[in-house]
Amino acid sequence: MHLPLVKAGKAHRLVESESEDRPGDRLRAAWTAAFVFPEGDSMENPSAPQAQAFSDVDRAAVYQAIFSRRDVRGQFLPTPVPDDLLARVLMAAHHAPSVGFMQPWNFLLVKSDAVKQRVHNVFAEANNEAALMFPNEKREIYSQLKLQGILEAPINLCITCDRSRSGPVVLGRTHMPTMDLYSSVCAVQNLWLAARAEGLGVGWVSIFHEKALQDALGIPHHIVPIAYLCIGYVSHFNNKPELEKAGWLPRLPINDLVYFEQWGDSDFGQNFPLTVALAKMQSDIQEKGVFPA
Amino acid sequence: MHLPLVKAGKAHRLVESESEDRPGDRLRAAWTAAFVFPEGDSMENPSAPQAQAFSDVDRAAVYQAIFSRRDVRGQFLPTPVPDDLLARVLMAAHHAPSVGFMQPWNFLLVKSDAVKQRVHNVFAEANNEAALMFPNEKREIYSQLKLQGILEAPINLCITCDRSRSGPVVLGRTHMPTMDLYSSVCAVQNLWLAARAEGLGVGWVSIFHEKALQDALGIPHHIVPIAYLCIGYVSHFNNKPELEKAGWLPRLPINDLVYFEQWGDSDFGQNFPLTVALAKMQSDIQEKGVFPA
Repeated sequence: MHLPLVKAGKAHRLVESESEDRPGDRLRAAWTAAFVFPEGDSMENPSAPQAQAFSDVDRAAVYQAIFSRRDVRGQFLPTPVPDDLLARVLMAAHHAPSVGFMQPWNFLLVKSDAVKQRVHNVFAEANNEAALMFPNEKREIYSQLKLQGILEAPINLCITCDRSRSGPVVLGRTHMPTMDLYSSVCAVQNLWLAARAEGLGVGWVSIFHEKALQDALGIPHHIVPIAYLCIGYVSHFNNKPELEKAGWLPRLPINDLVYFEQWGDSDFGQNFPLTVALAKMQSDIQEKGVFPA
Repeated sequence: MHLPLVKAGKAHRLVESESEDRPGDRLRAAWTAAFVFPEGDSMENPSAPQAQAFSDVDRAAVYQAIFSRRDVRGQFLPTPVPDDLLARVLMAAHHAPSVGFMQPWNFLLVKSDAVKQRVHNVFAEANNEAALMFPNEKREIYSQLKLQGILEAPINLCITCDRSRSGPVVLGRTHMPTMDLYSSVCAVQNLWLAARAEGLGVGWVSIFHEKALQDALGIPHHIVPIAYLCIGYVSHFNNKPELEKAGWLPRLPINDLVYFEQWGDSDFGQNFPLTVALAKMQSDIQEKGVFPA
């Protein structure tokens, strides 16, 4: 069901050589061939084949990554991370969806103790301020928390967003200007799930003054640091998020979050089977530790 | 290596009964037991076990989802989506990482033709404006593009962000106020990858005036619509992103995007093996259609 790769290659070559001769025609031909109603609109052809789902075991593996992924702060091991593995998780990030295919991300890898220490200082300053923002009872607890593994994780990675990548007008970003930021977040989540499958823990540290973090890493102020990630092998993955285990906040009942047709409409009428499926699934996860598969 | 679930349950019960007696002590005990340096700091115990990676085949399945995921606009089939399947992908979204475990998302499911048509009208208005923003040569092409499958996809889903969820001060969001938006984006990407494993196509539509979309769905103006998704079975998944196939923009060489220690530092010296691994991997994907596994 896939087009042969040579077709995409051909379209690409057409564009690359567009300066030779009638560039508009060539670009339009490439678009028409490969993009506009690509390969026939299946709605007009009800006998069209249906793309297959993954096998049951492959699907279960994807869900295992999703449901057993954790934000890791305290379990990092000093074991070095092989380059081929690091390449795979970076490539997973690079294949996130991006608005208008702008791929606005960069990947700034930090391995040196000196740079990690500089970033840790930036974190520590912000974290002291953060503690003061909580009410008395929670403040003392907050100040004891381990919220990052900057110095212990063998790899730190800052994923950024270059908002000017690919020019001023971006397809799909004309009305929601934050879409480029969201694209970089999708890269973070791709990397996080790939890392889980590789047995690598990832922790997202967000307690920084943006400018101080940019300065510690030499990032120009027009480039947005989206996520500062601590990455490494870990002793174990917790069975639940740490904040859930600690009773800071509970996992919300999903049926409280699902609406039908209009905001706030939880009338389960014809959606009763979905509601029941969701309630059972959440109970299995919370009480039995059984993930959907 | 996992704690028994009863431990988490116990911590949670301690908090639930905190109004009885010295709530501060009880909350602190729960935190200390379950959160602060959880289960020992592995850095101080180098003989600690190391969490296992997935098996090779399970890991390959996760990468298959990541690398074969597509933004689908034109290949939707009318085949109904079973409720148990829909429940799984929604639950995957609900298990995204969220800053301070605030879980700021809601899931507004749209199946009725009337609501879809209203949203389509909002899209069409914005899309006409968008076409005018492109330079002449691209404008005609833009206006021919199929950028959404709102009416064809059996399910539409708006994933939102409630910025006031869990109160004014959120752990981890004290200095980067956009972290809540990013959490909802992680939910989108979890759902998207789960859907790929289920054989469901997903298309993210972002060409809307925010207020018009909110009004079409009854969403209060303080709730941010993060993603409007078209979801359904598809005839096929393209082998590459449509914009790449059409030559609109190429996939960027990942080595142009990776820096070491400081922004802009591409001195590959000691990072040469990683650079080589990335270059080979990208070549395998682009030229042979072979994904990392």
